[in-house]
Amino acid sequence: MGFKKTKFNPESDLGFGTQAVTKNQRLLNQDGSVNVKRTGLSFFNTSNNYHRLITMRWTHFWLLVLAGYLIVNLLFATIYMSIGIEKLIGIQGHTTWEKFWDAFFFSAQTVSTVGYGHMYPYGMLASTVSAIESMIGLLAFALATGLLYGRFSRPSARIVYSKHMIVAPYLNGQRAFMFRFANQRRSTLIDLEVEVNLSYIEVVDGKPTRRFVQLELERKRVSLLSLNWTVVHPLDDNSPLKDVTHEDLIKAEATFAILLKAFDDTFSQTVHSRTSYQYDEVVWGAKFKPAFDRDEQGGIVLDLSRIGEYDKVDLPVLVKQLI
Amino acid sequence: MGFKKTKFNPESDLGFGTQAVTKNQRLLNQDGSVNVKRTGLSFFNTSNNYHRLITMRWTHFWLLVLAGYLIVNLLFATIYMSIGIEKLIGIQGHTTWEKFWDAFFFSAQTVSTVGYGHMYPYGMLASTVSAIESMIGLLAFALATGLLYGRFSRPSARIVYSKHMIVAPYLNGQRAFMFRFANQRRSTLIDLEVEVNLSYIEVVDGKPTRRFVQLELERKRVSLLSLNWTVVHPLDDNSPLKDVTHEDLIKAEATFAILLKAFDDTFSQTVHSRTSYQYDEVVWGAKFKPAFDRDEQGGIVLDLSRIGEYDKVDLPVLVKQLI
Amino acid sequence: MGFKKTKFNPESDLGFGTQAVTKNQRLLNQDGSVNVKRTGLSFFNTSNNYHRLITMRWTHFWLLVLAGYLIVNLLFATIYMSIGIEKLIGIQGHTTWEKFWDAFFFSAQTVSTVGYGHMYPYGMLASTVSAIESMIGLLAFALATGLLYGRFSRPSARIVYSKHMIVAPYLNGQRAFMFRFANQRRSTLIDLEVEVNLSYIEVVDGKPTRRFVQLELERKRVSLLSLNWTVVHPLDDNSPLKDVTHEDLIKAEATFAILLKAFDDTFSQTVHSRTSYQYDEVVWGAKFKPAFDRDEQGGIVLDLSRIGEYDKVDLPVLVKQLI
Amino acid sequence: MGFKKTKFNPESDLGFGTQAVTKNQRLLNQDGSVNVKRTGLSFFNTSNNYHRLITMRWTHFWLLVLAGYLIVNLLFATIYMSIGIEKLIGIQGHTTWEKFWDAFFFSAQTVSTVGYGHMYPYGMLASTVSAIESMIGLLAFALATGLLYGRFSRPSARIVYSKHMIVAPYLNGQRAFMFRFANQRRSTLIDLEVEVNLSYIEVVDGKPTRRFVQLELERKRVSLLSLNWTVVHPLDDNSPLKDVTHEDLIKAEATFAILLKAFDDTFSQTVHSRTSYQYDEVVWGAKFKPAFDRDEQGGIVLDLSRIGEYDKVDLPVLVKQLI
Repeated sequence: MGFKKTKFNPESDLGFGTQAVTKNQRLLNQDGSVNVKRTGLSFFNTSNNYHRLITMRWTHFWLLVLAGYLIVNLLFATIYMSIGIEKLIGIQGHTTWEKFWDAFFFSAQTVSTVGYGHMYPYGMLASTVSAIESMIGLLAFALATGLLYGRFSRPSARIVYSKHMIVAPYLNGQRAFMFRFANQRRSTLIDLEVEVNLSYIEVVDGKPTRRFVQLELERKRVSLLSLNWTVVHPLDDNSPLKDVTHEDLIKAEATFAILLKAFDDTFSQTVHSRTSYQYDEVVWGAKFKPAFDRDEQGGIVLDLSRIGEYDKVDLPVLVKQLI
Repeated sequence: MGFKKTKFNPESDLGFGTQAVTKNQRLLNQDGSVNVKRTGLSFFNTSNNYHRLITMRWTHFWLLVLAGYLIVNLLFATIYMSIGIEKLIGIQGHTTWEKFWDAFFFSAQTVSTVGYGHMYPYGMLASTVSAIESMIGLLAFALATGLLYGRFSRPSARIVYSKHMIVAPYLNGQRAFMFRFANQRRSTLIDLEVEVNLSYIEVVDGKPTRRFVQLELERKRVSLLSLNWTVVHPLDDNSPLKDVTHEDLIKAEATFAILLKAFDDTFSQTVHSRTSYQYDEVVWGAKFKPAFDRDEQGGIVLDLSRIGEYDKVDLPVLVKQLI
Repeated sequence: MGFKKTKFNPESDLGFGTQAVTKNQRLLNQDGSVNVKRTGLSFFNTSNNYHRLITMRWTHFWLLVLAGYLIVNLLFATIYMSIGIEKLIGIQGHTTWEKFWDAFFFSAQTVSTVGYGHMYPYGMLASTVSAIESMIGLLAFALATGLLYGRFSRPSARIVYSKHMIVAPYLNGQRAFMFRFANQRRSTLIDLEVEVNLSYIEVVDGKPTRRFVQLELERKRVSLLSLNWTVVHPLDDNSPLKDVTHEDLIKAEATFAILLKAFDDTFSQTVHSRTSYQYDEVVWGAKFKPAFDRDEQGGIVLDLSRIGEYDKVDLPVLVKQLI
Repeated sequence: MGFKKTKFNPESDLGFGTQAVTKNQRLLNQDGSVNVKRTGLSFFNTSNNYHRLITMRWTHFWLLVLAGYLIVNLLFATIYMSIGIEKLIGIQGHTTWEKFWDAFFFSAQTVSTVGYGHMYPYGMLASTVSAIESMIGLLAFALATGLLYGRFSRPSARIVYSKHMIVAPYLNGQRAFMFRFANQRRSTLIDLEVEVNLSYIEVVDGKPTRRFVQLELERKRVSLLSLNWTVVHPLDDNSPLKDVTHEDLIKAEATFAILLKAFDDTFSQTVHSRTSYQYDEVVWGAKFKPAFDRDEQGGIVLDLSRIGEYDKVDLPVLVKQLI
């Protein structure tokens, strides 16, 4: 019973350190993000601008672009008003309010470089402001459109992982921890490498300490992901989990961190994916059902919605437990 | 005769799994694509948008851009009509139909930011719509042009492979499986690595099972591809194909999957290429003809159309067969 | 006492060579830049244009863009003046000066493709110039906006290193050199590798010679950087620094060059970071304080401003010194 | 005397193959390009479009962009003429020729999206053509500007190699082949790896055959290139060149192909550089002069124009020759 002692494996603690014991809290979330907040950066630090703009939700991004467009035009409309609205030829509004909106739309036509020309600047000052505005418009829209395309074309993996990690019967009456995944995208993934890091809490000298072990896999690299890949950690003599029970996993708050790396043929770039399974997401005694069917022509059809489906089965009795 | 037993090589099954026995069907197509369809994604899933837009045929891409331009303008023309066409100053049409097309072309001039100005919006509502339209135009064209350039500059390998894999005489009276390829592009390929995976069907306990073996190559890396590269798998004692016959290949539905990886000096990126040879694309007893000539100055001229040319030759008799 | 002889390690001298003895001068600055100037390139050599434009300060970049816009418009205004200002229809200025500025703003409206149209070219020559100008405008703004977005989205690491390297107590009564760092960005760093190169001056045959040693680390790779990472060089029997004292470091002008490499999940690219610690930035007898807190929900909050904080502690007495 | 036999090294022939004996001709040029022409692609094959556009000379690129702009406008001017020039309102020319140029400039204003508006289309047909033209203009300029920025920002190494390879005295009375290089760019090169491949002609069974050997280097990797790097191949017992003379090199048409790989910190990408030295570019008995000076503050100043400078020295007499 319990976790087997393993050699100290200094490269598998994911940089959390042994002190960071967090009771009942995941270090790595199921969506692959890390459960750590950051402070200590000054408000004006620009380190995270790109990160924020490229990772924010699409609705937020669109609102931001719209808000930026609005604010720039309101700002320049105010400037044209203060210069003197009569410097904009072709203004048709009568009240100040109408004139302001004319200036606003003149600004919009300038910043987007549409420039219909039914309104145009007259005199040195208004001309200068509109010349600067059109330059700013070109640069600002370049940033916005660069971000738009950058977000759209950003290399990233979209992997469907099985909802549960299962403990399944394995070769020669052994057991194995298994999980399964497939590529949600139609791009081809090449040179896949997977790493499974187990973290659990051990009481050392009466003090709970977090331990990290990199689990050995039946296969850690695949040349090409065509269907799905079932990652297998056999519970053999080298495994720290050999004699472990479901209760051990719960008590030790065991978590499996999954790190996946591959080359995406469409993005022409290396992509990464992460996920994690917690003790309560492990199913004991199960076997994955095939996730593919045949179509009429006998071709293989992979059903991404069935990646996590399994059948309950009996596990082979552990020899050690019998003795 | 038949396939030699080889050590279990867990890293060469290309992720197809042993169950996926597909009678008379290629897993990997000759153009390198994988013979698997995907279902199970909801209609609104966006995972494959980028993939579709970047890999679709050029004619489809152009039609899509044109259609998008048309639809946006039809949509905005309808909006301007419903706002009231009199809000567009400079409209010259008389019938509703003519007016609609005037609105359509005003929209086109706005969305492309040409803005001649012989038509222009009047009043709050029409001005707002046209201001939003020009913003949308800038963003939409940024996506379209980004995709256009992304498609044009996407790093990818264009490799000409020999049409057939040949079984040729090799050093010391041995035989070898060989295929040949060259770079179709004029860019320089650096650090090439090639991997050949054989898959065949074996009857285990009366059940056909797909086996996968990674074949050992005389050379699996080249620093620089200047001419062509003939990849050689010698049929020595380590080869599972040592005593195999043409009939064995057919019966076992043998397929050779080729995975190539290189750094392209023009794209400044790593590129990948895949292809496959099936049992019926193997020529027994052949030798590749040189694919290059000399020009008048004695310089080397590689003829890409002759990469697959071979002469029929006699194969050395296998010693084992004699006994 | 002093530096222990180590095997010649030809891959750790950072390309400085042994001759480059620079008294009291850092080879690698704390910000990771290299302390070497370059000459011998002709004035017209373009090798560094991209480097300069992409690494210059933002204020300089903006000034350059503004200056370019100004100069292009001044230039074209002069051309329009010399063609004959009457070829620009719609000019409203009366004096030559006013006319020049009208030409200037016409140029600005052309180069930014706003084209209001209250001024427009008449006749072959002026039309040709403005057609060329709008083409130049599109290309020039493409370069400017490409650089703008290139600067903004350039993959780079922003790492907070501890201000000091410390000598801390280590396992089994040993000592170790340690420094600590964290990611300033909110992006996830994957597959981190760190390299620590020590350089010091040794007197060989009465001649000061610079020596380089790559220090062995307790761990040189981490799969994922979630909190901070304390890099540890244990002062064991393999270390050239085993019996070294603070005075030895000063006399030998010891410098530790730190090279860090990681994959940034937001940029989807490999990023590098460098820094260095000099003999006077080493604190003897210290221990890093935890840099993270708990928020109300028990979540981990990393405080980037506390990465360098340490407590003074006593160092274990070296056994060798006792004998 | 002569070349020592070495183990067959299948990974160092640069993909030229042993047959390609080219009398008095370099396989790899000094600028790193490969001396091979390609034929056999159909005229309409697009494999090399990107390569051509991204690697052509700047003058050619500018001429191409200008020519494209000209041709598009000539084409559309012809279309407007054939539709009926009276459909362009604001045309001021009287003769057909003048009208054609008016149509030409209207086209230029449309394709660049300037759209002054003193000329504008009237009627369905002319409006449709101009709407399509502005769309084409946006897409075509996107390609042109993408290529412009792509060319400007393309990751590539600019390395200054010493003009000659030298044979210099080395440790313990040995000799060594050496060459030197430095980075022409101000960007930092990280993780440099160098590979030196010797090719020479050997008469096997009376037939000249090209041999390829990868030479062992004193150091083949450097973490950081700060000054210059002198690459050293020691003529020790493992070297095939141990007892070789200048005459041997000439007779065997020996060529040294140099392959360099590094990470450029400004481009944030891996870059490659290649060059070659021929038998007649080897200087026997020489030593590189330091290529750096001190400025007034004692700082190091690297002079890129002096990378190739050497002093003639006597070589140690080979022990074997004495016996």
